[in-house]
Formats: sequence, structure tokens, C-alpha cells
Amino acid sequence: MKFNGGEYDVIVVGAGHAGCEAALASARMGCKTLVITMSLDSIALMPCNPSIGGTGKGHLVREIDALGGEMGINIDKTFIQSRMLNTAKGPAVHSLRAQADKYKYHKEMKKTLENQENLDLVMDEVIDIISEENIVKGVSTKLGANYYCKALILSTGVYLNSKIYIGEVSFYEGPNALGYSKYLTDSLVKLGLRMRRFKTGTPARIHRDSIDFSKMEIQMGDEKIIPFSFINDELELRQEPCYLTRTTENTHKIIMDNIKRSAMYSGEIESVGPRYCPSIEDKVVRFNDKPSHQTFIEPEGLGTKEMYIQGISTSLPYEVQIDMYKSITGLENCKIMRPAYAIEYDCIDPTQLKPSLEIKGVENLFSAGQFNGTSGYEEAAAQGLIAGINAVLKIQGKDSFILDRSEAYIGVLIDDLVTKGTNEPYRMMTSRSEYRLLLRQDNADLRLTEKGYEIGLVTEERYKKFKIKKEQLDKEIERLKTERVTPKQVNKILDDLNLPKINTGMSLYEFFKRPEYDYKILEKIGKDPKTQILESVKEQCQITAKYEGYIDKQLKQIDQFKKLETKKLPQDIDYSKIDGLRLEARQKLNDIRPISIGQASRISGVSPADISVLLIYLEQIKRGRGERIEQ
Amino acid sequence: MKFNGGEYDVIVVGAGHAGCEAALASARMGCKTLVITMSLDSIALMPCNPSIGGTGKGHLVREIDALGGEMGINIDKTFIQSRMLNTAKGPAVHSLRAQADKYKYHKEMKKTLENQENLDLVMDEVIDIISEENIVKGVSTKLGANYYCKALILSTGVYLNSKIYIGEVSFYEGPNALGYSKYLTDSLVKLGLRMRRFKTGTPARIHRDSIDFSKMEIQMGDEKIIPFSFINDELELRQEPCYLTRTTENTHKIIMDNIKRSAMYSGEIESVGPRYCPSIEDKVVRFNDKPSHQTFIEPEGLGTKEMYIQGISTSLPYEVQIDMYKSITGLENCKIMRPAYAIEYDCIDPTQLKPSLEIKGVENLFSAGQFNGTSGYEEAAAQGLIAGINAVLKIQGKDSFILDRSEAYIGVLIDDLVTKGTNEPYRMMTSRSEYRLLLRQDNADLRLTEKGYEIGLVTEERYKKFKIKKEQLDKEIERLKTERVTPKQVNKILDDLNLPKINTGMSLYEFFKRPEYDYKILEKIGKDPKTQILESVKEQCQITAKYEGYIDKQLKQIDQFKKLETKKLPQDIDYSKIDGLRLEARQKLNDIRPISIGQASRISGVSPADISVLLIYLEQIKRGRGERIEQ
Repeated sequence: MKFNGGEYDVIVVGAGHAGCEAALASARMGCKTLVITMSLDSIALMPCNPSIGGTGKGHLVREIDALGGEMGINIDKTFIQSRMLNTAKGPAVHSLRAQADKYKYHKEMKKTLENQENLDLVMDEVIDIISEENIVKGVSTKLGANYYCKALILSTGVYLNSKIYIGEVSFYEGPNALGYSKYLTDSLVKLGLRMRRFKTGTPARIHRDSIDFSKMEIQMGDEKIIPFSFINDELELRQEPCYLTRTTENTHKIIMDNIKRSAMYSGEIESVGPRYCPSIEDKVVRFNDKPSHQTFIEPEGLGTKEMYIQGISTSLPYEVQIDMYKSITGLENCKIMRPAYAIEYDCIDPTQLKPSLEIKGVENLFSAGQFNGTSGYEEAAAQGLIAGINAVLKIQGKDSFILDRSEAYIGVLIDDLVTKGTNEPYRMMTSRSEYRLLLRQDNADLRLTEKGYEIGLVTEERYKKFKIKKEQLDKEIERLKTERVTPKQVNKILDDLNLPKINTGMSLYEFFKRPEYDYKILEKIGKDPKTQILESVKEQCQITAKYEGYIDKQLKQIDQFKKLETKKLPQDIDYSKIDGLRLEARQKLNDIRPISIGQASRISGVSPADISVLLIYLEQIKRGRGERIEQ
Repeated sequence: MKFNGGEYDVIVVGAGHAGCEAALASARMGCKTLVITMSLDSIALMPCNPSIGGTGKGHLVREIDALGGEMGINIDKTFIQSRMLNTAKGPAVHSLRAQADKYKYHKEMKKTLENQENLDLVMDEVIDIISEENIVKGVSTKLGANYYCKALILSTGVYLNSKIYIGEVSFYEGPNALGYSKYLTDSLVKLGLRMRRFKTGTPARIHRDSIDFSKMEIQMGDEKIIPFSFINDELELRQEPCYLTRTTENTHKIIMDNIKRSAMYSGEIESVGPRYCPSIEDKVVRFNDKPSHQTFIEPEGLGTKEMYIQGISTSLPYEVQIDMYKSITGLENCKIMRPAYAIEYDCIDPTQLKPSLEIKGVENLFSAGQFNGTSGYEEAAAQGLIAGINAVLKIQGKDSFILDRSEAYIGVLIDDLVTKGTNEPYRMMTSRSEYRLLLRQDNADLRLTEKGYEIGLVTEERYKKFKIKKEQLDKEIERLKTERVTPKQVNKILDDLNLPKINTGMSLYEFFKRPEYDYKILEKIGKDPKTQILESVKEQCQITAKYEGYIDKQLKQIDQFKKLETKKLPQDIDYSKIDGLRLEARQKLNDIRPISIGQASRISGVSPADISVLLIYLEQIKRGRGERIEQ
């Protein structure tokens, strides 16, 4: 009964944040691409928080953007509030975060997909993967089509065997009353994949007019908007307020009195939820000395009265939810429009993935997003982009595109997943990066645009813009290092401005190292650049000068790191036959199949002694001395 | 496990076109109202044709508007093309029709509901009706809430046990991959309702860029837009083109070659579909001498590339659909984004309804829309409005609001449903009205605004506007009847204009009776009104004068009709005990329980002889002679 629905280079299953980036990357790199989604009305849906970015996540979005991805452009079109977080701290943790109009975000992304050349979109459900000897050939759909492809990308989000939990009530259903995928997991198990079950959850949506904002703290957006995308210089100011309020003692009492009725605590849900995005009952239980937790009340869009209650996700019964939300300051008379729920879904242990996001042992099958065990739209989009790029490169017979931990948060994300795996939905944080002073959101373009251009995802327009910035930056750094100031020239002015004086002559670059001095001061002392330069260039110069010491230190660490990263391990090694490796290391190495000594060193259960054995083994191969040890 | 979710005056189940009108009417009439919907993202969804109005249906929308309903206002906000149909014919069949931006239509209606005082919206599924001795008390939901109410309105659309059919593939699911209601039918059966199963269907959606419009005829909107709502004087011009094309011989061959694989013809679907909105296979089979059928290609909105293929709904397999759509002129390379499907659902035999749309034998339970066996957004909205009004009036202990067949298409619709029933999804057409020269779309406000105001749904603003128009109209008719023209005054001018001359003096009103003369001519002969009057008033004057003869005749017929309509039949008559009635008439009358001799006369199976018996019976009661016959 199956018929041939068509041949494609790349097929993407699912059109969430991962699927959209994967499909756009593939189509833009010239591959004939098909997206199969269960609902065209939930493309780039935000079933949870209506926002993009935040600490660590904002970095991912700017990296996606620098590589030519879509998320940054789409949020710039559809944001309703934008803020740079953590500006009181150092530049490494500055993070952009924007509230989205969730309907518009979906609509604009759908439009972008619809307008993308080489890209077809069809509403259907994938029920089976077609393969021959573990080489993927295509998919079968519920409506009877066999679509064939050279590479397949799975980005199924939370839709595989999704089950909703609201207290004692549970039922199989996708988010937002959408359908769920019933058959695909079986097909994956047949291919040899180890599946697991994760859970996540979302808070209630409450009617705006039922909220007493006078009891809350208003939180406005920034006065000047910094766009997410490097292609945008300025954006129209759209700054809807959010509101900050808190749980009360009564909230915690209601939760504890009913904790046994939470699906999370009754034993109904056995799967693991996201540690860094816990339900309110988790927070109350884990931090039982904390008398109150804060929550932001955020609009879901400009045209709706639905408000998102950030941080108060729950799997308590609807009955208890009503009391619980009403116990939060300002929500005393609140009306719930959508009750909170937990959702459980099938995903994989990501150590089954190569760093290219291809699944080991199943040729041409890639995966991205929550399917890989992550949480968050940004983590999903980052993986989608990389999976899309690597699916195309695989088809073209080219080397995989792999960002390492020193190059990007995307590198950190994927290395963590494929090397260490995760026992809970993985979330990005700046603390996960050992080189975070270098992997800043402000320099994502400088780090990655060139790479995106080489791949073919960065447009000429974007590249030209980048080159101008890069040129200005190089020139300006040169100037700062060359031009000098003397005490005689500046101390009078500094003194007038109530700023510390200088004792000796120095370059402007040295001058900038002092925390108080910036481009405004340069202007005052007549040392500002003679030709106009971009604000973003000035920002880079200041950071480069001020943090030079730390940056140099990290660069040296990266040199060390790179040495191990470039020691490539052949993919066909049988680690069980390498003498000297401990048993655990042999097993783990055979499982993970690291691509380098560096990656091997990060596998839990692989000791420094094991690494020494591997280094010797590599030397032996290199020098061609004797036969391969395993033979 | 159930808890009290709250007490309401009126609860509405479902937020489609019927549910929205019902809920808004109830809330605007001051009742505390709750809408329970399975998805807040599908409020006022257009799962089929992205348009409002059309022949007969446009009349319903203007009547809804005149009564203070929302549909006309919402389409005025969101249309992307507007046309007055049938302008070459008489004013009775002029019908307004607008293409909607389907996403915007949903969004704006959701906003309206969210902003309505007295109205709560919650996302949940009704699984049971709470009743005591067949008096409705409330509903139970999937999430464990019992909501209590004084009146309940069911507007479940096609969501009760919905089953999708695409060729040999079938599965339980709502439209657009949404969920469906699994439990409510059982509850209704327990209450004694006779359920039935109807089907409907929708064509595929095709990517705009895959269509060759050069092979099609472009269809533009009107140059001047006539708003749907009487509160709008002018609307900004938004006229996206549609396109007309045709099926080919090959289309018909593909269909006939595969007819056994259509779910409709394979025996898979046994239920009945809408006669006046048939699938393409139905058209090809029924009219097998027709070599081609036309189809309009219509945009689904401004921000999407999805195009609706009007009139080509099908339950053929996806495989055959692809070939079939590609055989249509201009669709040779078309790409399907959403395949066509048929959908089967539970609904009721509407003869179980009173003219108030309350269900007989179940106190305080009302219903509206496709649940009552109709098809079409407009038919649904009309019933929703009436059900909403009558639910409130019932709570207030007031008489039902019933429009008769001489007052409105809404009256025709509901009288047809409750008196004759329907064996297929009922669709409104102008031919269904015996008084269609009076029930025009242009005079819906004159017919119904006063009634809407009495009920409390028409706002002061709208009423004031109506009064001004009415006053102008009365004055102008008076003037036209008083002022005279003579041949001497006008024949020279008429001759210059190449128009027939007049032979005798006459009033302007008489002058207008001639088809060629209108207000433009009045101006030329210096007989135009001295004070400015509305264009719509001029239109009314012309129609009133020109069609006076026909209108008078219909008014006389209505007098006759009203005589029978006002002969009310008590609701507690046991017809089985009335001597002289034929057996069939006794059964039918006991089933339908007509409210008047007029309604009784329209029941199929009730003969003129039976009506005579009833008239005698009524006389006997009235005169108080003897005892009631049945005792």
C-alpha cells in the first residue's frame, strides 16, 4: 500500500526549533530538503516559556546566528521585550534574552520555511524508518508515502509517545492538545537505538485581567535594544513589561500538603526532569529552607491576554494548581486558562551520537534537539543547525563540521552530550564552558562567521558586513596600541572628571586596561578615532584591552587543549584489545568512540593513566612501528 | 476525585464559530459564562474554506451582525478579499463573501473572547454532563473539575469521536491534527439523545509557489468594499486575488480509476456528507456528463503560502490525491502541504430540538452548530447566537427568542432543522426561503436591529446609528412619495442621457419604479435629497420602490403565514390521543412538538387534513368548551 512520495537529499522529521534550523541549513546549502511535521500549525511552537535566550542560551543563539542560522533573525522580528542580562557582571556572562510574541514567532518561522528554496513542507506522521543493512534510505508515513533520502534528521522534540500528567490524571497527548507520535520509537529500537524516557513540564497560563500587578514589581526591557542577529544594526523599540512576584508560605504549604498528589512524587512519573528548570514542587522540596521563590509573569504575545507564570511548572492536580497559583502574591483572584502539566517522552542517550550528530551504527541518520536529551529551544536549534550542516557534508562526501569546546558553546553542548551523556534534560549554562571569557556572546560573529561562510550558510551580505567590522577592529586595535597618552596631556582633564590620574606615558591600549576608562573618556581627551567606527567595534576593543590578561591565560590553556584535540583517534579501534587500558575505560571508549585524545580524556571512567596508554598507542601507530596492537 | 471548578450561569462546550457567538451573547447579556475548549489555539478555527459568507450564508452573517453577534465584525477585521456575489441578479440573491486571513480570524476572535467581561475561557475536555432527573446541572472535565451552571450549550463541531479518512487510512483525530472528544457522546446517549454520524471533508492545501497562475483566470475583489458589519461604514481596501481554474478529463479519469479507493466509495464511510459541498469524487460520479468542474484557488492568509483548493475535497488516498491535483490546469507541478481528508463525527438529529435550540426532554441543555447537523461556519454562528440568547432568557425566566421564517434566514435555518430535520449536513441557500425578496442581506439591520436591542445585545452605539438610518429612510420615502416630476421638467434631460422619457407627471417614488432610474438621474434632474443621506438609505429607497409589487405580494403571504404561526400549540399535548389525526401525524407531532399550527403544517407526514383536525382542537380549547380531548 506504500507509494513513492519522492526522493530528497535530506528529510527532517519535526518542525520545532531543531527541525527548522536543520531544514533551513540543508536547503540553503543546496540540498533538496523535505520537512515532515505532524502539524503545520505548530512550526517553531513555544509550548513552554515564550522567550529566547537568557544566561548561556543567549550565547547559543548568537552563535547560531553567526553561522547563518535563523533563530536570532526570527526573534528579532517577533520580540516584545529585550534585555541584556547580568550587565553588572563581567562580559563573559552578559546574556541577551527576549520575550517573544509566541504566535508571531511561529508564523514568521513558518513563512521563512515556506519561502525557502529547495525546501518542501508536508503535514504527515513518520511511522517507520526505511533502512538497508543499517544504512538509512528514507521514511514511511501514516498516510502511506515512502519518502527516500540520502540523510535523515530526527528532531521529534517531546512528541514520541508523549504522555501528559496533571496530578492523578494522565493521557497520551502532545503539548498544547496536539497529537503525538505513536510508532516511530519502535522503528528506532529495531535499528538498535537505546531509548530512554525524560520528562519536562510547563506552568499554567493565566488571564491577564485576573492578575493584580500593583502587588508586583514591574520589569521593563532595556532602553536600547541590542539585536540578537548580527545582521541587524537597530531594531524598533518594542518593550512590553513583565512582572516579578513571589510564592508565599501558603504556596509552599499547599504544595507540601498535596505533594503525594503530584505526578512527580506519586510514583506516576519515573522519568527524570530538567534539573535547572525544576517544577515548583521540586524547588519547594529541594530547598525547603527557602521561604519564597520568585516568579516572572510574562505576556505570551501582544494580541493575547494569556500570561506565562515563569518557574511555576507543576504536575499537581488541577484542583491543587488553582489553590497554589492563587496563593502567589498578586494572583489571589487569578483565572487559569491553560492548566500546568508535566509531559513524558521518548528520547535517546546521546552517547550514541558522533560529534557530527550522526547516530553511531546507523549510517546517514542524524538527530537533534530534545530527542538527544536536551531541554530548551536554543539547545535544540543549535543542534538542528549542526545536524543539518553535517547531513549535507556527509552527502557531499566532506568532513564533518565540528566545533570544539574552545570555539563555541555549541561545541561545549555537543561535546558534553556525546562524550559525557546526560541523565536529565541537558541545559546550557555559562559555567559549562572552561573558556567562557573567550566564548562571549558579543564576539560570536568574530569567532564563527568565517566558518559559516566557508560552509556556505553565511550570506554575502552578512559576510561583507562582518569583514567591515573585522577590518575596523584590527585597525582600531593597531591604533590603540600605537597612539600614546602622557600625564601632561590628560591628567588635568581626568582630574576635572574626578577620575584617577596616570603617572607615566602609555599606549591607549594600556590606558584602556584601567576599569574607569572608556571611549567617552577618549573623546574627552581628544584621542577618539578620527573615522567613525561601529559601537560593537568599540565594545570589542575595550573588552580586549581590559581582559587581556585573562584572555591570554585562556588562550594558552586552549593551546594545551588543542594539542590533545588534534590527536585524532581512528574510528575503527577495538579498545577491548588495547593492553593496559582498565576494563571500564575499554567499555566506555568502545561505547563513545571518541574522535580525539581530548574527547577521550573527558569521558567519565577514563583515567589519566588510560590516556597515557592511548597516547603511547597512537605513537606506535604513527611511527608505523610493528603491527597494530589489536592484530 | 472531582472538585468544584466553579459556578456559572452558562457554560459553552467548544469554541468554534457556534461556541464563540453563544458565549459572547451570554456574557454580553450579563450572564457569568464559561467556555471550555480542548484547544485555546483553535478558537474560531477555519479548518475548511478560509472564507465567510457567500450565497445565503452572507445573509446569515448580516443577520447575526444586526442582532449584535460577532462574526461580521470579525471578518471585517480580517478579510483579505471581499466581493458582493450575484450582482447581475436581483437584490434578493446579492450575497457578500469575504476571504479571511485564517490565522488572523482565529487570533482576533480569541482576543475578543479574552476581552469580554463575564467570560472565562479554559482549556480542558468535557467528558460528562452532570444532571439530575434530566435537568442539566453542569459538566465534568478530563482534568477532574465539575463546573456547575444553570444552562449548558453544546457546540462541539466535528470533534465528537472524530475519525479522519484518507483512502484506506483512517484514524481517530480532530481536524488539523488536533485531539478529539472521546467520552461526551456516551454521556449524551445516557441522557436519551439519539446520536447519528455525519461526515464532511476538506481539500488539500498547496504551496503557492508550485502553482502556475498564468494558466488560470484571476479573480479580483470588488473595487469598493461593502462591510459585513452594519457598524462599519468604510473599510480599508485589502484585495488579494483568487484564481479560477478547472479539472480536466484526466482528473476525472484518475478519480474514476481509483473510485473504489475513496473512503466514501469503499464502504469505509457510511455516514452522509454535505450535498451542496460534495467531494470531487461525488461531483464526478453524480454529474458524469460534465467534462470539467471549476475550482477557485484561494490564499489562506497574507503571511502564508498555503493555498486552499476550493471544491476539490476528497477522501481518496494520498497517493491518488497527488496525481489528481496535478491533473488540474495550472497545478501540474503542485506540492501538497496538507493532504485532503474526510472527517466523520457524532451529531444529533435536530428534530430533538425546540425552536429555542433547547434539547427536548433535557432541561437547560442547548446546542448549536455542526452538532445540530448543519455544515458551514455561518450556520454554526447563527445557531450559536440564538442558543446563547435563549440560554440566558431561560435562566431569566423569559420567553424564548424565536425568529420565524418571515423574519430571517436564521428563522428559516432553525425552523428547517427542528421541524423537518435533515439527513445530511444542512447548508443555507437563498432558495430555502419562501420570502427571500424580503429577507435580503441589505435590510438585515432594518429587520433585526430593534430585536437585538430589546434583547440587550445591540450596543447603544449601534442602535443610535441604526435609528439615524431608519429616520433618514422614513423621511426619504416620504419625500419620494410627495415630490413629483413632470415630463416638461425632465424629458429633455432624459433624452440627452439616452433614457426613456416619461409620459405623465408622477411621484419620484413612481419614477423610481422604472429600472433605468436611480439617484444619479435624480441628481441630474435636480430632484436629489437636499440634505445628505446615507448610500445605504438610497439603496433601500430604490429597492423598495422598484420591487414594491413583489414585496407587497410577499407581505400578504406573510400575513397568511403569521396567522398560522400565532396559533400556538400547548407543549403538553398528547397527540396520540387526538381523534382524527392519522397515525403518522400523531407520531411526528409527538416527536417534533411544534410550537404553532404553522410549524405543524411544515412537518413532513402531517397532512392538510391533520392540520384541520388540529385547528378544530385548538378552537375547542380556546372556547373552553368541554374538557380537553385527550382526557
